[in-house]
Amino acid sequence: MIIIGVDPGTNFTGYGLIELDKNTYTKIHHGLIKLPSSNSLPQKLEIIYDELDRVIKYYKPDEFSIETAFFGKNVQSAMKIGYARGVSLLVAVHNNLPASEYSPREIKKSVVGNGAASKEQVFFMISTLLNLKNVKMRFDESDALAVALCHAFRLKTPSRKGKSWKDFIEAFPERIIQN
Amino acid sequence: MIIIGVDPGTNFTGYGLIELDKNTYTKIHHGLIKLPSSNSLPQKLEIIYDELDRVIKYYKPDEFSIETAFFGKNVQSAMKIGYARGVSLLVAVHNNLPASEYSPREIKKSVVGNGAASKEQVFFMISTLLNLKNVKMRFDESDALAVALCHAFRLKTPSRKGKSWKDFIEAFPERIIQN
Repeated sequence: MIIIGVDPGTNFTGYGLIELDKNTYTKIHHGLIKLPSSNSLPQKLEIIYDELDRVIKYYKPDEFSIETAFFGKNVQSAMKIGYARGVSLLVAVHNNLPASEYSPREIKKSVVGNGAASKEQVFFMISTLLNLKNVKMRFDESDALAVALCHAFRLKTPSRKGKSWKDFIEAFPERIIQN
Repeated sequence: MIIIGVDPGTNFTGYGLIELDKNTYTKIHHGLIKLPSSNSLPQKLEIIYDELDRVIKYYKPDEFSIETAFFGKNVQSAMKIGYARGVSLLVAVHNNLPASEYSPREIKKSVVGNGAASKEQVFFMISTLLNLKNVKMRFDESDALAVALCHAFRLKTPSRKGKSWKDFIEAFPERIIQN
């Protein structure tokens, strides 16, 4: 199964694709979409849409994951991230990809084991887990790979947050006590 | 010239189309896109994209206008509006429509003459200016018509905010002093 992770922004949008095969995680590709500051906001959003669409059509991931929530206090920054995130989610739905959202805390907790980890720590763990020694990348890219990895870990654990009893019963039919 | 105005939100997105013909402004159509709360965020964004795209392809406006900025303090609300606004701007660029953004204060100042006007005052002025007596609509729709009208007024005034000297020289070539 291939998972794409996206770290959206209106200056840089990072993405990373990993393959989950039983217990191994392999990096397939990662990249950075640079949004020139000279471009208008609609132009930037079009670039994000087109680039993510191109990557998805090429690598054909099965699942889409994205960082959600925002813990800053600046309303204008939150809105800008909202623009990029809205367009990214639209690419997912236009490509019929199930989209999952994770908070920065969930991602760090899942990848580093500490919800308050620094970007450097996330980068170090990503490099170790995906065997990316001496690979250079921006934090936007390592963060995107971290979202994808967080989603992969979640897919492998039976008790996923937000899952309903219906999903649980489907996953573990033998747990139903028949009278 | 036909102008579409959009008031984006993840619960309701309003839109309104007006025709600007010399000094007359006529309402062409207005509508409300309802986003069911049971739908996921990606599904809601897809509905906004599809509905706005359908309206634009049907009425073929020449210009696109949208409310920008957000004066609340809630970061999560700002981000949600960002999602809807980002997708709306993407529809504009995908349909090759020039997009203009106006702050709530600019819109109210332009339509009512008071930057701190209430939604009721905006509704009253829209009804009067576009001759919409006894027409029922939600504030999301009257706000969308207000954005379109604000853009129409701006197109008619020679000194538009944010214009560069290059645009000014193009508009008024006779003002260049030739030695």
